[in-house]
Amino acid sequence: MDSTSPLHKQMLDRALELAHAAAQCDEVPVGAVIYDEDGQIWGEGYNLTITNADPTAHAEIVALREAGKKRGTPNLTGLMLAVSLEPCAMCAQALAWARIKEVRFAATDPKSGGVLQGAAVYTHKTCHHKPFVDHGYLAEESKLLLQTFFKAKR
Amino acid sequence: MDSTSPLHKQMLDRALELAHAAAQCDEVPVGAVIYDEDGQIWGEGYNLTITNADPTAHAEIVALREAGKKRGTPNLTGLMLAVSLEPCAMCAQALAWARIKEVRFAATDPKSGGVLQGAAVYTHKTCHHKPFVDHGYLAEESKLLLQTFFKAKR
Repeated sequence: MDSTSPLHKQMLDRALELAHAAAQCDEVPVGAVIYDEDGQIWGEGYNLTITNADPTAHAEIVALREAGKKRGTPNLTGLMLAVSLEPCAMCAQALAWARIKEVRFAATDPKSGGVLQGAAVYTHKTCHHKPFVDHGYLAEESKLLLQTFFKAKR
Repeated sequence: MDSTSPLHKQMLDRALELAHAAAQCDEVPVGAVIYDEDGQIWGEGYNLTITNADPTAHAEIVALREAGKKRGTPNLTGLMLAVSLEPCAMCAQALAWARIKEVRFAATDPKSGGVLQGAAVYTHKTCHHKPFVDHGYLAEESKLLLQTFFKAKR
């Protein structure tokens, strides 16, 4: 995956680390990081839907809310997101509202993804900001973590 | 709109009232209410994206987070939502994750809607819960409020 520079790889590594932390809390293991070109992290998060009794608390939403608070504005123009799983339609549209510049994810999500499949949020004219999207780095590692988590649940 | 019973009308009235409160705070005037069949309100909200520096703080998300907190679970099975404007893709998918039973909105949103147009979130097999959807009651009132708000902004 040529377009993944060392900075983006480092952030996807961190996202996967956060996904492991989610699993430790018995939450679906997905982690996300919001960062700038200098490598400063503005927001981080992992799934907290059960812990927080919040149906919207996906990793990306948790990270977006933290970054908004730190920046003092809902407009996160120029910032980038790394996440261990393809965002769902909720998260994909949230990233668009926040004007996130680039979205990188590890594994695709054929079941519930909203970027490459299903709602394909960034392909419609009702979406007014379309981030650059890249994916694939750490895909196998992220998929394995999710599979192991769900297997243990059954 | 035959399927809008007095209960749903009352909740859409309240949603529009909350939309007016948003305008008072200089936020895009959209309001939302989450309620059950007995008319108990579990969550309310209006746009707070600028006030809270939170790109995800649409009316529906604010209401969902409050209802989750009150119920102590992200699973809001059986609850219904009334909102003054068609949900965007973010909010539509959030309502699906929360398993909201019925979604009623006043005005359609040709520009950014995610239920009847664009991402049309509930039409894809990647969406695993599809609420009953109804709309139209108070549509003109909600549209006028939004138009007046945006006209004053220009």
